[in-house]
Amino acid sequence: MLETTIIETQKVKMKKPILIEGLPGIGLVGKIAADHLIDELGAQEVAQLFSPHFPHQVIMQKNGVMRMVKNRFYHAPGKKNDLLILVGDVQAVTSEAQYEVTGKILDYCQKKKVSLIITLGGYGTGRVPTQPKVFGIVSNKPMVEEYKKYGVVFGESKGSIIGAAGMLLGLGKIRRMPGLCLMGETHGGYVDPKSAQAVLEVLCKILGIKVDSRKLDQRAKESEAFAKKMEKEALAAKGVAFPEQPKTDLSYIR
Amino acid sequence: MLETTIIETQKVKMKKPILIEGLPGIGLVGKIAADHLIDELGAQEVAQLFSPHFPHQVIMQKNGVMRMVKNRFYHAPGKKNDLLILVGDVQAVTSEAQYEVTGKILDYCQKKKVSLIITLGGYGTGRVPTQPKVFGIVSNKPMVEEYKKYGVVFGESKGSIIGAAGMLLGLGKIRRMPGLCLMGETHGGYVDPKSAQAVLEVLCKILGIKVDSRKLDQRAKESEAFAKKMEKEALAAKGVAFPEQPKTDLSYIR
Amino acid sequence: MLETTIIETQKVKMKKPILIEGLPGIGLVGKIAADHLIDELGAQEVAQLFSPHFPHQVIMQKNGVMRMVKNRFYHAPGKKNDLLILVGDVQAVTSEAQYEVTGKILDYCQKKKVSLIITLGGYGTGRVPTQPKVFGIVSNKPMVEEYKKYGVVFGESKGSIIGAAGMLLGLGKIRRMPGLCLMGETHGGYVDPKSAQAVLEVLCKILGIKVDSRKLDQRAKESEAFAKKMEKEALAAKGVAFPEQPKTDLSYIR
Amino acid sequence: MLETTIIETQKVKMKKPILIEGLPGIGLVGKIAADHLIDELGAQEVAQLFSPHFPHQVIMQKNGVMRMVKNRFYHAPGKKNDLLILVGDVQAVTSEAQYEVTGKILDYCQKKKVSLIITLGGYGTGRVPTQPKVFGIVSNKPMVEEYKKYGVVFGESKGSIIGAAGMLLGLGKIRRMPGLCLMGETHGGYVDPKSAQAVLEVLCKILGIKVDSRKLDQRAKESEAFAKKMEKEALAAKGVAFPEQPKTDLSYIR
Repeated sequence: MLETTIIETQKVKMKKPILIEGLPGIGLVGKIAADHLIDELGAQEVAQLFSPHFPHQVIMQKNGVMRMVKNRFYHAPGKKNDLLILVGDVQAVTSEAQYEVTGKILDYCQKKKVSLIITLGGYGTGRVPTQPKVFGIVSNKPMVEEYKKYGVVFGESKGSIIGAAGMLLGLGKIRRMPGLCLMGETHGGYVDPKSAQAVLEVLCKILGIKVDSRKLDQRAKESEAFAKKMEKEALAAKGVAFPEQPKTDLSYIR
Repeated sequence: MLETTIIETQKVKMKKPILIEGLPGIGLVGKIAADHLIDELGAQEVAQLFSPHFPHQVIMQKNGVMRMVKNRFYHAPGKKNDLLILVGDVQAVTSEAQYEVTGKILDYCQKKKVSLIITLGGYGTGRVPTQPKVFGIVSNKPMVEEYKKYGVVFGESKGSIIGAAGMLLGLGKIRRMPGLCLMGETHGGYVDPKSAQAVLEVLCKILGIKVDSRKLDQRAKESEAFAKKMEKEALAAKGVAFPEQPKTDLSYIR
Repeated sequence: MLETTIIETQKVKMKKPILIEGLPGIGLVGKIAADHLIDELGAQEVAQLFSPHFPHQVIMQKNGVMRMVKNRFYHAPGKKNDLLILVGDVQAVTSEAQYEVTGKILDYCQKKKVSLIITLGGYGTGRVPTQPKVFGIVSNKPMVEEYKKYGVVFGESKGSIIGAAGMLLGLGKIRRMPGLCLMGETHGGYVDPKSAQAVLEVLCKILGIKVDSRKLDQRAKESEAFAKKMEKEALAAKGVAFPEQPKTDLSYIR
Repeated sequence: MLETTIIETQKVKMKKPILIEGLPGIGLVGKIAADHLIDELGAQEVAQLFSPHFPHQVIMQKNGVMRMVKNRFYHAPGKKNDLLILVGDVQAVTSEAQYEVTGKILDYCQKKKVSLIITLGGYGTGRVPTQPKVFGIVSNKPMVEEYKKYGVVFGESKGSIIGAAGMLLGLGKIRRMPGLCLMGETHGGYVDPKSAQAVLEVLCKILGIKVDSRKLDQRAKESEAFAKKMEKEALAAKGVAFPEQPKTDLSYIR
């Protein structure tokens, strides 16, 4: 496999879908919100994304069956718009990889006639917020007014949006696909279900849906445990060639 | 050479072959077991795999003739299934390289109509096992019951399988090729012929063959010496451009 | 997006244009000079350059609208020659990326029938110059005499020109496109508007134009602030995958 | 420029040429020997090799004209065999780059009908040799006897040959092009003209030519100075994007 590949596991007709992206990022805010949405809406997996830029590992599941590290697309029907929800174990880390993976996601979105991209993430401030704000960034000026009315805060976030949450908007804009990034205010140093809840509430208002948020804390704990496990093994992966001497720097084979 | 290339050195008709992979990994468990199998069965080399992702070195042999760093496929006839055994000096280290190399191996396997993939490796625990268990991971649920009866332990191994042993199962599954990974329990901090023996015994039961294991210790010593040599020279390779100042960081030319 | 892409935002007929390059570099000398030139001449944006080798970030603007990290081409009409001015947020850092991006820039230049390439940069000496000299390097011997008369100092600069300022001359020469690099003498350890002014004065003499330099100091401050912001966020980008543990080395996913 | 490119500067008919490679390596032994051979034979440049895997710099020459970092091929007529001598500023450092560059060199060699590849290098021992031996490694067994008679020492060198000197033999062998690597015994920690002289003497015997070696020491000094300069600037190249803060790790833009 030489490039990022999306494999459809179900061919579903979708009604002007909205892409909701919640890959791992700051405070796992977007991931927790999107995973929760999938569960509460009973969304169905429709596609899997594999990438040579993801870790070269397979995950051992409790039942003895392995699975690839991957991203997944889930589908949930809606009134005006269906939802296409993107979640996953990891996101690519280098620029080249992010540009490639984002391009493939947008190809799939265009095929499915996605009408709007909403990316979810955390906005790290180094402080513990009492009531987390939800900051917004959009592709085009008129969208600012459109989403202000849902309580999205514009003009207060500074700097850059890193990774998929930003790249989907940026590369989407080049393809003339409108996008909105919702960022939950968060400390940045820990997994933050409260920030995820704030993002989810604004998102639900925008989508005109209701979702129970009681299980968010439990989900946050699971996400944190998984993220730590991935990281630990990723470090172990460095010693794959000559693992009997794990302290040696093996970067030379690259 | 811009991509991984497999060159057949003998065109052999194979009977529904099973791929046995034993590239270098944790405790060199898989490598020792596979190298031993080749010797005891008198398997014949049928193909060589070269890759631009392997170290840019050639190995000086005692007779004054060089050879490339490579992987090799060996063939041994069997009753129901022939064996195609994959061994080698190194495996690729980056994700992109692992995905490419694994893809090429699977291309060759499909050409040779491989019916099952068995990968061999070590499962590092940080403890010295008294009688090493052989843990298993499979591509599909029904395979769990099928291999339990040979003494393979399922559901006790956690985390990820890194490198070829995992990727062959993962990318193989996408191509609908069933796979089994056998991991010998091992400390992880040293080369472990005892763990290799445990893996070999389970493998022989599965294959319905018998193999003398007396020479395993000797083989382990040779493997360890070679792995250390490769590593030492790989480090030296970093200084190739301006070797008169070997302490300088030369990563800039990359 | 798999490779560097230039998108024309205005199709403009140009009269034997001269490319002026001022991307970020030593002391931001070239960038300040080129940005200033654009403003003073009222040059119009005609193309944008995006690259998967640029940081995988989008920049949050004060108005709530994001924009990609990019380079831009501006056009200003001239008497004998129009100007095509290249500026931007960043330049690629690896060799492979520089060769690709430079190639794309030259493709666009050839399409626009660029007759001369002038690259602007700083020449770091570790000393604070009283009256900064402007050093020159050219593609071909006869150009030395041609530009000496404008006060360009030849034969006193040593070593290499790194990045776009050098590569445009180097790869341009292979395509038989003549080039001149103007380097303002500078300390190298800080942003230097005085050096930019020296470069600008020589450039204006060569181009036969006049430009007010009073706003250069203000521009230098803005450039410095932006460069620092980019750098800070770029460091943050390293922790994108598992940002809850920002101190961990995450390079393994690459 | 997306891949390594060889540009012929003179179309010369060659008589069954022998490739002599002397790129920078351990003790600069091969480089000094090959540069010297070019000078003494009055060999003419026939081709230049550029690569996106070489540093993204251009070199400022004393006359004010820049030149690319490159490798060069020189041609010298011979009695039985012409010589095609490959020298240069640098060699690629990563495996992928070495495989690509070596492949391009071999393409050119095949086009020119090269009948034998001789690569020159140093063999670092950590000791100062009194009379440096010249170790040899060949592609095929029968070549051992053939070159022993010229004083080449076989079977005493261990480990791997890193970089072009090894890869040309390795990838050449796959194309059925015979090769010989001559390695001058050297300390490895400094530039060694004495080792280069030993290599040159054996090479001249093999080629049946005579070459004055009096200027070798002077050449060694120049080579050392150039190598140090390249290295120093290469380090500076790391800070190209935001050079005003040279101490920061800028690897993130990659």
